[in-house]
Amino acid sequence: MDDQEAMRLAIAHAHSVEGRTAPRPPVGAVVVRDGVVVGQGATSPPYGPHAEVHALNDAGELARGADLYVTLEPCCVTIHTPPCTRAILAAGIRHVIVSSLDPNPLVSGQGLTQLREAGVEVTVGVGAEETDEIIRPFATFIRQQRPYVTAKWAMTLDGKIATHSSDAYWISGSEARRWVHNLRDRVDAILVGSGTVRADDPMLTVRLTDEERLYARAPRQGPLRVVLASQGALPAQSKLLQPDLASDTCIIVGEDCPVEQQQRLRDTGVEVIQVASNNTSQLDLTSALSALAQKGVMHVLIEGGNSTLGSAFDQQRIDHVAAFIAPKLVGGEAALSPLGGKGLAFMREALQLQQVRIQIIGEDVLIEGDLT
Amino acid sequence: MDDQEAMRLAIAHAHSVEGRTAPRPPVGAVVVRDGVVVGQGATSPPYGPHAEVHALNDAGELARGADLYVTLEPCCVTIHTPPCTRAILAAGIRHVIVSSLDPNPLVSGQGLTQLREAGVEVTVGVGAEETDEIIRPFATFIRQQRPYVTAKWAMTLDGKIATHSSDAYWISGSEARRWVHNLRDRVDAILVGSGTVRADDPMLTVRLTDEERLYARAPRQGPLRVVLASQGALPAQSKLLQPDLASDTCIIVGEDCPVEQQQRLRDTGVEVIQVASNNTSQLDLTSALSALAQKGVMHVLIEGGNSTLGSAFDQQRIDHVAAFIAPKLVGGEAALSPLGGKGLAFMREALQLQQVRIQIIGEDVLIEGDLT
Repeated sequence: MDDQEAMRLAIAHAHSVEGRTAPRPPVGAVVVRDGVVVGQGATSPPYGPHAEVHALNDAGELARGADLYVTLEPCCVTIHTPPCTRAILAAGIRHVIVSSLDPNPLVSGQGLTQLREAGVEVTVGVGAEETDEIIRPFATFIRQQRPYVTAKWAMTLDGKIATHSSDAYWISGSEARRWVHNLRDRVDAILVGSGTVRADDPMLTVRLTDEERLYARAPRQGPLRVVLASQGALPAQSKLLQPDLASDTCIIVGEDCPVEQQQRLRDTGVEVIQVASNNTSQLDLTSALSALAQKGVMHVLIEGGNSTLGSAFDQQRIDHVAAFIAPKLVGGEAALSPLGGKGLAFMREALQLQQVRIQIIGEDVLIEGDLT
Repeated sequence: MDDQEAMRLAIAHAHSVEGRTAPRPPVGAVVVRDGVVVGQGATSPPYGPHAEVHALNDAGELARGADLYVTLEPCCVTIHTPPCTRAILAAGIRHVIVSSLDPNPLVSGQGLTQLREAGVEVTVGVGAEETDEIIRPFATFIRQQRPYVTAKWAMTLDGKIATHSSDAYWISGSEARRWVHNLRDRVDAILVGSGTVRADDPMLTVRLTDEERLYARAPRQGPLRVVLASQGALPAQSKLLQPDLASDTCIIVGEDCPVEQQQRLRDTGVEVIQVASNNTSQLDLTSALSALAQKGVMHVLIEGGNSTLGSAFDQQRIDHVAAFIAPKLVGGEAALSPLGGKGLAFMREALQLQQVRIQIIGEDVLIEGDLT
């Protein structure tokens, strides 16, 4: 087993806990001795041990003199758990191979310095292209104290996310929808506007069989379901307000949402959070995201609709875009396109996606890219 | 040189005359003797000799006992020129290899029967996938007495063809724009609505250096420029109304376009055609296309805008779609998407593209497909 293979295994462990570690980063670790994997692990749910500790415990005495592959620089400070650097030194690891540096300014580089000073050989950057990607939500969260935002939509080839009569079932094919459920499975929260609840009455759950999962993943509650509803007005029969979904649902309302309305929502079992409104008496998306950050949400997936995605765009709060294009046409002046809001006045000001990736998923085309 | 190679050469000749043969189909022909090309040719401009005659003349006496590769079944009737079957028999061709059958119901299959009955060996279907594609505009024209319509647009990843202030320069990159000029070079006419003339003031010309052309092509006038302007109101300073462009420009006006307005347009040098209006006093696109068919236009490229493309969609007059998606976002509730008009009410009624082809052209994604 060479460096690349060992790190690939560690990366698979990191993927397996995406969406399950906030407010800690998802990390994977593997202990290799004489070319054989003797220990492996991933970050536990909040406040449990880090990946390195699991992998070292798994290896036991075999860790002495072995190599440790870890997708993120080991921590050197006590935040909920003792520093991993101490565990690595205690276990007698000879060589630590790290993929990405910790984006946390409290740690970055210092963990490796501690290890080097203690005589451990350290290598950095193996597999970093993929692990930097995995770590992006945490990096944004730790540096900017706000959730990382992925905006996802599916549109027809004529740029519509619904027909003029607001019908959207279905735009993309079953393989694309499965991909989206895998995306949901990776995030901490899914956010939509109240218009989407009214039009589509979504459940915002992850619905995947084990075979449909791109990575084996631990069971979990959630992701958290979040609805922006400035006046708090949602149909009482909405699926999100029924007992089985309400308990993991959070409704964010604006300043002028009446107290009785808030109470009516709370009575269904949902959490209600009130945030500032902006000058058009719409609730302020940036304040809503701050409120989610305070709940430890690192990665939010915004799934619509047009006006919520438009606000996120106008407030420059989209970090990553995943857009499906279905090769079909529906037409209609009155049919909505993905981003409402104010928009930019000149095409030369358009925001260019970076790191553009294009994939064919079933019958649809997926274009992904970064805005930050 | 095997069958495939010989037919590829004939296909290149057919491509070289696309947009240059209406109302005849673009065809290529090659004469091969003992594995060596001894004659080649393509359809002449209207009323000149067909491809087979050029290739046979090019081969001269070497045609006797040789093989003829031709992208379309040779004609067996006199329409402007004598039947090609007669020329083939006179030249002493041994074996005719044909790619596509003639879609003209007056000819289809009969040309081959005549050749077989005269003792010529006949093979059909070599390279038909590509030649059926080349022949589609002619097939629609001959069977339905209307031009084949390709709809082309470029949009941002959020489905906009312009910003909320109608700015569209540029959505796609230079390679995509070069591809579009190659598309223009293949069609008989380019059609836009009067709104596009007002917003973009386009020239609707083919601007390509020889190196930028996908196929070596003969020089020509045109393509014909067509503007749908139901009231005939176009800014006097529009580039299309200036002397150098006006002579190859046709303005199609509706029933209620005042006679003086029509005269004002004619005075610039353009042709003015009046067609029926529909019940919303917009001019009827189907009537406009019929008028173009009467002028011998086989293939029309509709380049915009939103309302013209929307009418074409609503009237089910789009045969082929070429849509560029630029990986950038511009946002805006008020920004237009590619297809206006009425549109379909339910997503399940959406028109699925057939034969979908996805290409990356420079920084943009091109999705093409057929609706008929």
